[in-house]
Amino acid sequence: MQFELTREYFDHLRTDIELGDTEAVTRALDELYPADIAEVINELDLHEAKFVYNLLDKDTAADVLVEMEEEVRERFMASLSTQQIAREIDNLETDDAADVIAELPESRQEEVLSQLEDIEQADEIKSLLEYDEDTAGGLMGKELIRVNIGWKVLRCVREMRRQAEDIDAVYTIYVVDDDDRLQGKLSLKKLLLASTQSSVADIYDPDIQSVTTDMPAKEVATFMQKYDLVAIPVVDYQGHLQGRITIDDVVDVIKEESEKDFQLLSGISEDVESGDSVWLLTRARLPWLMVGLFGGILGSKVISNYEPQIQIHPEMAIFMPLIAAMGGNVGVQSSAIVVQSLANKTIGDDSMFPRLMKELAVALVNGSICSSLVFAYNILFSDSMALSITVSIALITVICFAAIFGTVVPLILHRYKVNPAVATGPFITTTNDILGLFIYFTVGRILYGMF
Amino acid sequence: MQFELTREYFDHLRTDIELGDTEAVTRALDELYPADIAEVINELDLHEAKFVYNLLDKDTAADVLVEMEEEVRERFMASLSTQQIAREIDNLETDDAADVIAELPESRQEEVLSQLEDIEQADEIKSLLEYDEDTAGGLMGKELIRVNIGWKVLRCVREMRRQAEDIDAVYTIYVVDDDDRLQGKLSLKKLLLASTQSSVADIYDPDIQSVTTDMPAKEVATFMQKYDLVAIPVVDYQGHLQGRITIDDVVDVIKEESEKDFQLLSGISEDVESGDSVWLLTRARLPWLMVGLFGGILGSKVISNYEPQIQIHPEMAIFMPLIAAMGGNVGVQSSAIVVQSLANKTIGDDSMFPRLMKELAVALVNGSICSSLVFAYNILFSDSMALSITVSIALITVICFAAIFGTVVPLILHRYKVNPAVATGPFITTTNDILGLFIYFTVGRILYGMF
Repeated sequence: MQFELTREYFDHLRTDIELGDTEAVTRALDELYPADIAEVINELDLHEAKFVYNLLDKDTAADVLVEMEEEVRERFMASLSTQQIAREIDNLETDDAADVIAELPESRQEEVLSQLEDIEQADEIKSLLEYDEDTAGGLMGKELIRVNIGWKVLRCVREMRRQAEDIDAVYTIYVVDDDDRLQGKLSLKKLLLASTQSSVADIYDPDIQSVTTDMPAKEVATFMQKYDLVAIPVVDYQGHLQGRITIDDVVDVIKEESEKDFQLLSGISEDVESGDSVWLLTRARLPWLMVGLFGGILGSKVISNYEPQIQIHPEMAIFMPLIAAMGGNVGVQSSAIVVQSLANKTIGDDSMFPRLMKELAVALVNGSICSSLVFAYNILFSDSMALSITVSIALITVICFAAIFGTVVPLILHRYKVNPAVATGPFITTTNDILGLFIYFTVGRILYGMF
Repeated sequence: MQFELTREYFDHLRTDIELGDTEAVTRALDELYPADIAEVINELDLHEAKFVYNLLDKDTAADVLVEMEEEVRERFMASLSTQQIAREIDNLETDDAADVIAELPESRQEEVLSQLEDIEQADEIKSLLEYDEDTAGGLMGKELIRVNIGWKVLRCVREMRRQAEDIDAVYTIYVVDDDDRLQGKLSLKKLLLASTQSSVADIYDPDIQSVTTDMPAKEVATFMQKYDLVAIPVVDYQGHLQGRITIDDVVDVIKEESEKDFQLLSGISEDVESGDSVWLLTRARLPWLMVGLFGGILGSKVISNYEPQIQIHPEMAIFMPLIAAMGGNVGVQSSAIVVQSLANKTIGDDSMFPRLMKELAVALVNGSICSSLVFAYNILFSDSMALSITVSIALITVICFAAIFGTVVPLILHRYKVNPAVATGPFITTTNDILGLFIYFTVGRILYGMF
């Protein structure tokens, strides 16, 4: 059912393209949806891509353009004439059109807009380009069905037919007043069931949720998700209906947000994909490696204070990495839970203390188990009682501190409006490494003094 | 615009509940949507929750039940009589109803189903309960509008009116043949624009994407996302229309999937929330801590082989944690990129070699920079040339090995149908710790021999 881009399909296609066999290529693409064709084009070189693209009908071509990978599209559009781009844009919904145009160099944006056939659409796209892409305004499209609260159902249906000509999918019918201020919604179901003589005012639903144009995209996503909305109207501060956001655009936002957190957690600071250039991939990772490096050097300072001790008891060095690693692991676990709960809004701002107590309880349980196990191991396989006790006491202490630290840091960052996910990755690991070593050697110094 | 559960609101509400002031409580809930009320109830104790719940009208009450947190709902339903549950279920869509009923003990499931007023709905729910919850069948609902391909538009509209009575939102009109096999779709727009005399066969769109009941939920999510679908019909292997999945359910699947990966990456093996019990939280974390512990002990074995060397050159111990940590960090970065690309299907099965080369290139650049920096530091602040060279050579070697390892392991896991996210967290960190120490001491042994 779902298209799969096999090596075989691909090799065939490339041969057909090379032979210039338009018929075979058209046949190969025939059953495919735009998203599939875009997948194919992502893998082709520019020359091959243009060959395929030119065989598409204009509606498909426009959709394929939207579905391409961003870098592929940029390269591809650079090779198209302004007229060609304008022709594709004419076949797109305004939100997609604005996204595509926004990727062009500014000088070309003007040119393309001036060549659009539909002047009204050009104006709409222009107005969309003015919003920050990470806001509701940047997400919204202009295609929607609006009816006046004063109309009768008959006029409604007539107007809807006219408006629906340009719209692919009808989600909700928005009801506005004479000043175009959003008043409510009218469900298709109500309209289907109503008599043609009733008035919109009698059958519309004044209870409507909307967002303002400047709401951050991330909040729009949370909002639509919480209330299970398929589409949401966007208004300005005076309540004038400006556009609508559909769930498919919001799904992309949700995905991007969680990918960003995933990347932060793994120490990658920019949104990169494995297909990106070596330079981009390097740049995205280096900052966190620097944090790790700096932390490692700090850690080495801590250890070097205990160098004489290590010389007398070299066996202490043996468990340094274990202590450091466990501190790092526990810290990441604790912070990940907090970050995720904050993202899901399942915890509020004032829950620092109970959360801390719970994390401490978990840490004590896990710490006791791990400490006992490593103690049993050391008793069996090592000669030094001092070492065995040092390692186990240090381990449980480190686990508790790491848990506290991993819980508190993201909560504090969140309070100061910094993305707490920053604190889940290498930062927590590194800090806990150092903290762990410090605890380890301090405990060691005390215990070795006693035995 | 969006409801925020403030401490103040909450304190007021609790006081009103305690006073038994139904009017004040009703007023406090009046402006809220079901998702908001569920948020309030999540924070109340059982007694308070029931007070609030009993004040809701039946449609709202049912929706609130669906929106509650799972544990809260379970506790809550345990306190309701079978009749009460049946009354709520009657007001739910079949997919939500099935989800709620599935949480009940099996003996109660039967009881509740037998008490539903709408026998047809009871049968539908029963049939939904038979599907695995992680498949398309488990996600789908039965509410949809179906028209026969042989009908005229007039009959269509009449039938739709009748069917629409039970349905909240109309997404698509599905066209079936006399055997109820899915034939295509009919857009509301087409229907709006068509004359009442035309036949469905003339205006329907035979091009329709569907999924089978046994498709894994995760794949349904990818599918709907790829093709930007708001709803998708579900069919059995004979093509009979069984139900439909709407995007809001799929959004939940997408979120859960990315949360699962996030948790795996941070060393948490079960889906937990910060609100869960200490025991659950402990259980979810202990397995990975064990991996870390075991790895730490293995690491200690590696180091203990070099104990005499450490006794002679205790300064070598100083940089052990740095080497281990950097190996871990790079490994996580590399594996995270691969895991994410696999999840997004931007890389295929056969791209092992080019990916490896690219990762190696990134590792060489990052490794060179980090090694140079640490070398400069050591030259400035340490007396031992052997140590300075050892640390830097070991560091770049470890970074390259960690990158290779971090890339290859998830790709291999993926090939053997294991979730590659398993390999991004503590597993990679631990293995790279050990590998790093081994490389460090080997390089040290060689270089110290030379100087």
